[in-house]
Amino acid sequence: MFIAFEGIDGCGKSTQLDLFYDYLVKSGFECIKVREPGGTILGEKVRRILLDKEMRINSRSELLLFLASRAQLIEEIIKPSLEKGYYVLADRFADSSIAYQGAGRNLGEVVVEKLNAFATDNIFPDIVFYIDIPVKEALRRIESKSKDRIEREGENYLRVVREAYLSMANKRENFYILDGTKSIEEIHNEIVNLYKSFKPSP
Amino acid sequence: MFIAFEGIDGCGKSTQLDLFYDYLVKSGFECIKVREPGGTILGEKVRRILLDKEMRINSRSELLLFLASRAQLIEEIIKPSLEKGYYVLADRFADSSIAYQGAGRNLGEVVVEKLNAFATDNIFPDIVFYIDIPVKEALRRIESKSKDRIEREGENYLRVVREAYLSMANKRENFYILDGTKSIEEIHNEIVNLYKSFKPSP
Ligand SMILES: Nc1ncnc2c1ncn2[C@@H]1O[C@H](COP(=O)(O)OP(=O)(O)O)[C@@H](O)[C@H]1O
Ligand SMILES: Nc1ncnc2c1ncn2[C@@H]1O[C@H](COP(=O)(O)OP(=O)(O)O)[C@@H](O)[C@H]1O
Ligand SMILES: [Mg+2]
Ligand SMILES: [Mg+2]
Repeated sequence: MFIAFEGIDGCGKSTQLDLFYDYLVKSGFECIKVREPGGTILGEKVRRILLDKEMRINSRSELLLFLASRAQLIEEIIKPSLEKGYYVLADRFADSSIAYQGAGRNLGEVVVEKLNAFATDNIFPDIVFYIDIPVKEALRRIESKSKDRIEREGENYLRVVREAYLSMANKRENFYILDGTKSIEEIHNEIVNLYKSFKPSP
Repeated sequence: MFIAFEGIDGCGKSTQLDLFYDYLVKSGFECIKVREPGGTILGEKVRRILLDKEMRINSRSELLLFLASRAQLIEEIIKPSLEKGYYVLADRFADSSIAYQGAGRNLGEVVVEKLNAFATDNIFPDIVFYIDIPVKEALRRIESKSKDRIEREGENYLRVVREAYLSMANKRENFYILDGTKSIEEIHNEIVNLYKSFKPSP
């Protein structure tokens, strides 16, 4: 099973992914965590380019670099892991590109969906947990952190990204919105319950 | 005006591009040369990843990295140069992806055409000079050179790439096949004549 955690920075993705990972491991499952961009040698090199504060990158190149990293992650890590029956937990995946590049950079969400399908060879998460928090709250939480190229985009950009995430819920199955302002414990329990009630789409 | 030189390694692209560049400069035109992948800071970083002999790169990631480099080259160098009325001479461009990744890696030529259009923002060369030579002759010419990741692919791969290039001529305007086994001088003269007879497509 392939599960992705999505949301703007500071929403609690890594916190919840780690808790859910521990839950699955305790339940006796083999699990791996992957992060985007990165997770492979190629991906880590691409990550360094993407997050470099000095780098000039136009929107289409930015998207294509994320996709290159994703395609490698799919082939090298995700496909073989799923074939072995492992759980794959992803800290961001294809929906991040739809929200950040498709909506945020105005490349178009449908265009990015198609490019995602090419990059992932049509492999998508069985479940997406989107953790929603107001932009101001996210910025407050990551205030003290030194920000990378994308995190520096600021409030208006993140508002567009958040709206794009929220609108995905209407169009998609097994895309769950969680209220990220609740306590870490509460959100974790909701994630476990949603996971338990999950029925694969036919 | 935007002119690309295409063909398998060793066919004589760089030789002819340099000669044609000199010809244009002597004729009083402003000219720039660009090479793929590379030509921008981002592109050079991507180039290093792509040509690294140790790097594991699947076919789709390879293509997406070329496209990321191309998109940056278009935005940062080619668009502004064309706007200033410069000649842009490219050592490989979009057709290399169609031949090497679309045909050579079996990703599909039509798929790659669409991805090219996204990456280039629909900017394509006015003229393509494709220099054709038999694969064996190309390998002979680059024999002594230390080969990068893609040049190591060998004869069968290059045969598929060459066929793909040759078949482009039927479908496209202002795509010229030059016989790369002729002398450097002869090919140069043919290029100059084709350039002089060029009428932009309406
Ligand atoms: N539900 C929550 N309520 C309050 N703070 C939280 C919550 N979840 C996470 N945090 C805190 O917010 C910050 C960002 O969380 P993190 O999991 O790193 O987010 P992300 O991975 O989405 O950027 C961390 O300091 C984390 O402890
Ligand atoms: N028409 C030609 N006949 C014979 N040798 C050639 C010709 N054109 C180029 N060469 C030689 O072939 C080699 C490869 O040429 P080059 O222009 O670097 O090709 P490319 O840039 O397409 O790889 C060089 O040693 C060059 O001098
Ligand atoms: Mg995180
Ligand atoms: Mg050359």
